[in-house]
Amino acid sequence: MNIPQSVKWENGTIQLLDQRKLPHVTEYLTLETVSSVFDAIKSLAVRGAPAIGITAAFGVALSALKTPAENVQDLKEQVLIDSGYLSQSRPTAVNLFWALNRINEVVTRSTTIESLREDVVAEALKIQAEDEAVGRLIGEHALQLFQDGDRVMTICNAGSIATAKYGTALAPFFLAKEHGINLSVFACETRPVFQGARLTTWELIQAGIDVTLITDSMAAHTMKTKKISAVITGADRIAANGDSANKIGTFGLAVLAKSFGIPFYIAAPLSTFDLATPNGEAIPIEERDPSEITHVNGLNIAPDGIRVFNPAFDVAPAHLITGIVTEKGVIKPNEQAIAALFQ
Amino acid sequence: MNIPQSVKWENGTIQLLDQRKLPHVTEYLTLETVSSVFDAIKSLAVRGAPAIGITAAFGVALSALKTPAENVQDLKEQVLIDSGYLSQSRPTAVNLFWALNRINEVVTRSTTIESLREDVVAEALKIQAEDEAVGRLIGEHALQLFQDGDRVMTICNAGSIATAKYGTALAPFFLAKEHGINLSVFACETRPVFQGARLTTWELIQAGIDVTLITDSMAAHTMKTKKISAVITGADRIAANGDSANKIGTFGLAVLAKSFGIPFYIAAPLSTFDLATPNGEAIPIEERDPSEITHVNGLNIAPDGIRVFNPAFDVAPAHLITGIVTEKGVIKPNEQAIAALFQ
Repeated sequence: MNIPQSVKWENGTIQLLDQRKLPHVTEYLTLETVSSVFDAIKSLAVRGAPAIGITAAFGVALSALKTPAENVQDLKEQVLIDSGYLSQSRPTAVNLFWALNRINEVVTRSTTIESLREDVVAEALKIQAEDEAVGRLIGEHALQLFQDGDRVMTICNAGSIATAKYGTALAPFFLAKEHGINLSVFACETRPVFQGARLTTWELIQAGIDVTLITDSMAAHTMKTKKISAVITGADRIAANGDSANKIGTFGLAVLAKSFGIPFYIAAPLSTFDLATPNGEAIPIEERDPSEITHVNGLNIAPDGIRVFNPAFDVAPAHLITGIVTEKGVIKPNEQAIAALFQ
Repeated sequence: MNIPQSVKWENGTIQLLDQRKLPHVTEYLTLETVSSVFDAIKSLAVRGAPAIGITAAFGVALSALKTPAENVQDLKEQVLIDSGYLSQSRPTAVNLFWALNRINEVVTRSTTIESLREDVVAEALKIQAEDEAVGRLIGEHALQLFQDGDRVMTICNAGSIATAKYGTALAPFFLAKEHGINLSVFACETRPVFQGARLTTWELIQAGIDVTLITDSMAAHTMKTKKISAVITGADRIAANGDSANKIGTFGLAVLAKSFGIPFYIAAPLSTFDLATPNGEAIPIEERDPSEITHVNGLNIAPDGIRVFNPAFDVAPAHLITGIVTEKGVIKPNEQAIAALFQ
């Protein structure tokens, strides 16, 4: 099975899938300098919090390997400067800071040029391997929720190319394929940016998984007429009470699933939980540029000057969520169960 | 207030708003021949069942006026031939046949060349005036359901340019404006064809009505955060039990409205009811070309060969509909109330 991978470390270079060109062109950029990594992150060649973090970590590895140095102190200084520079490539990406902090600790405690270079590369590979393992565990746990022949709906792209390998919401589909279990996926196109139409369909097709594309507006009719068995989506942030913020459209799917009596699952790693946020009301919802809605392929589909409301996320309240699938198993979306995850 | 009108009869010609060029170019085609009317209908310059019927009726009027004739029998023959030709411009448009049948009856009973010409033009104008009156009545009845300051969501374009003047679901917004009542409209963009983004926003802006564009996926979040007061949509066909088929996405809005405890209204003339169809299960749902979903502005947004499910309509079941607004008033969506409408 071919699971597309967005970031690869090969012969001391980063091979980065250029997600801007999907689904029509599959092209890997070869990144050999810190500034090319900065540009790739900033210009959205890579997307998905874990994939961005991994790319940045390898970016620091490039700095460690390529910076000429006569002593370890000079090397440390330049590598930490490059790490700080990379941290500004996507200022809102928490995962980016987290990955860079892990790398910075390794840099700081290195005592020789050689060990710094080896250890930074090793730490970046470890971050990637851990994310792959987390995705695989989420996939295995989620797969327990489905049966052979199930028809599962998803939105956006919580998939392989957003992470190290398996993704979160899409992980069970890759593992089902591996285990010879047949699942059919219905992918919502995910307006306004079409991550479902462009990315989710593409990566599932690469892996030979059965997938059907619908518009977001077809979710209710599809649940009814195609007998959808379950909905599974990723999450951007999960509050302490289980309320889950994810791509706009997720809340509506949760309401529809409830009305049809089918389970609605969130799939996300522990790093997505934010225990400092008590509930969904406390999650700020970013509003993005109106042109994301008014323009498609660069052409204006709406009247000039039309007022637009463009929230990037919405919140599925805990009471509409059947279960949250993490690398530690499936939990109920409530304060006790979530707190227990972290004890 | 400027309510855009899609079909006008002016100086023996049809002035037809070219809806394909909206919202960027407001251009009226001058139609002076039957074949240009045929082409305009077939090529979707005009859309909306009532507007198509009115255009075709004026097309027969053009035939009556322009066909050289020495006696009334020859004129009748040619006009009926032209009417039959126009009936093939959009083979699934019930309203088209209905309008042409009305005109044909006038043609058939005419006794002189002059009276035929006068009566055919008069009948076409009457069809248009009746549709305008129906829209106005629907608007007045619907307006009783709203209060000053209400925020109302709609989908697709059941508006002025789909009809003679006021539309159905959009009629109350024009009348509110006329009466100095403030309503805010939230227009769902209506994938895949974007009738909401392209047409509803445009015609409401023309009339100076407050309108905000959202993607269909934002309906749930918008209902919650913008405190939507009600949803109102048109219908393509209403079954004897009140189940209502309309543009894909309508069913989902009905489910969401129920979950938020806000009323969901259908606005449609009596001609939309089909008492021979017992319920929604008996309404056939047309599936349209995959390219409507995979291509936007001529560019492919999805992987080549992706499987697509593209139902054009869905059915809002009667139990989710608060009321159906007709020219005879607002009724509950049940068999007794609907049967009583036609007694």
